Amino acid sequence: MNASDLTAFPAESVMHVSSNGKAVKNKLSMVVFSGDMDKVMAALIIATGAAASGMEVTMFFTFWGLKVIEKPGQLTGKGWMGRMMGVMNRGGLDAIGPSRLNMGGMGRWMFKKMMKEKGVASLPEFYETAVDLGVKMMPCQMSLDVMEFDAKNFQANVTSPVGVATFLEEAAESKVTLFI
Amino acid sequence: MNASDLTAFPAESVMHVSSNGKAVKNKLSMVVFSGDMDKVMAALIIATGAAASGMEVTMFFTFWGLKVIEKPGQLTGKGWMGRMMGVMNRGGLDAIGPSRLNMGGMGRWMFKKMMKEKGVASLPEFYETAVDLGVKMMPCQMSLDVMEFDAKNFQANVTSPVGVATFLEEAAESKVTLFI
Amino acid sequence: MNASDLTAFPAESVMHVSSNGKAVKNKLSMVVFSGDMDKVMAALIIATGAAASGMEVTMFFTFWGLKVIEKPGQLTGKGWMGRMMGVMNRGGLDAIGPSRLNMGGMGRWMFKKMMKEKGVASLPEFYETAVDLGVKMMPCQMSLDVMEFDAKNFQANVTSPVGVATFLEEAAESKVTLFI
Repeated sequence: MNASDLTAFPAESVMHVSSNGKAVKNKLSMVVFSGDMDKVMAALIIATGAAASGMEVTMFFTFWGLKVIEKPGQLTGKGWMGRMMGVMNRGGLDAIGPSRLNMGGMGRWMFKKMMKEKGVASLPEFYETAVDLGVKMMPCQMSLDVMEFDAKNFQANVTSPVGVATFLEEAAESKVTLFI
Repeated sequence: MNASDLTAFPAESVMHVSSNGKAVKNKLSMVVFSGDMDKVMAALIIATGAAASGMEVTMFFTFWGLKVIEKPGQLTGKGWMGRMMGVMNRGGLDAIGPSRLNMGGMGRWMFKKMMKEKGVASLPEFYETAVDLGVKMMPCQMSLDVMEFDAKNFQANVTSPVGVATFLEEAAESKVTLFI
Repeated sequence: MNASDLTAFPAESVMHVSSNGKAVKNKLSMVVFSGDMDKVMAALIIATGAAASGMEVTMFFTFWGLKVIEKPGQLTGKGWMGRMMGVMNRGGLDAIGPSRLNMGGMGRWMFKKMMKEKGVASLPEFYETAVDLGVKMMPCQMSLDVMEFDAKNFQANVTSPVGVATFLEEAAESKVTLFI
């Protein structure tokens, strides 16, 4: 290596490269495991905040989080687990309750009321904003199988179901990765 | 670029710079979403452990996590949500219960008893240690509004309320970021 | 510094070094705080997926997560907290219930049934795979003391109990760190 070789390898590109030779991007990745209203809210606020600040954002929906990307009114699967999840929540993103203080749906109503009064967007509005800002949303194939979700009931912006290895590639090139 | 330019750009500084030109620091960032005694305990143990090892530490308190930075004895807000949170927990950090085995307060008491017997610091002691070690504590503006917290009821060390974008800047320059 | 010095400092090694001079590895670190079947499942799926993709993986078990690395049939400790945890769960990894829909054990049974029907491995099978793939498992010393676990009841692959500072060293050299 000599000085002239270095001109073909500018400092800027050095900065972008991490240990396995993959670029580290100004990117946020997230596993959305929870289906609780408050945690999903936090996930979408962080995702839209990051995307609005110019970060690339990838969300990986798994387990209860799959409810977030489902179109409203779905009964989920036909097996026991699927029916159980459908009975619990037929209304999609607008019908999930918080992890605390839910009290049979009253918590959800109160949270929504407070958010409206304070001028904070609703969950479906945050979701739309995330889509508009180009947040990538990926469903977890294995959870989808076990919990009997049907990929054709997912929102239009959602990618094809992927395995955890695909998500880990996104995470490995991200500055920040969260499990919510 | 030639070899002499490189002398002005030492290897050490190359190591410090990430993709958007911002330094990656020996730093830990954390979203504290939970208000459960056990999770808050874990958050404070990790924060103080990191700070004691020489890491810079930033904690971003949001949703139920805001209870952590409130002075004891607050009734929180005046609206429904605020009063509900106040009724649930008037004692500040010393009065929150664990996420499991709480059984109407008995879990909190047992946990505290066990921690004392084993010579482990209490939550308020961990909090004080974090403050002493220079851990930066930032409240989330949006949660504060929705859940009707009043910034003047926060502990003295807490910064002014900030938006999620400010936290993401901290996270993007951190080696480790957690959502608790 | 001159051009010939640079030949002793190849670009590749620049890429490997982070701000405190420690290498950033193709590595995943995880705090396993939860003892809920579904979260432990997610943790083990991510861990085995990462290890199978060639990442180095470290799991740090703390609080309720310690149940994951215990041999089946343990009563945990002799104090109140320990006995309480033992009564709740004597069967080890195969006997923990999910965070939602457990309904006195029925949720656990349903989850296991669904996983079997869909050809997904059981928790003990995922654990074994993680061990086979060389996932490093470390128990948290402080949790072990407070919750009255006995290190001699842990599975054979588990390391000696360590403090949080040891885990943070693992996390600081990881591309991805999660709190589950």
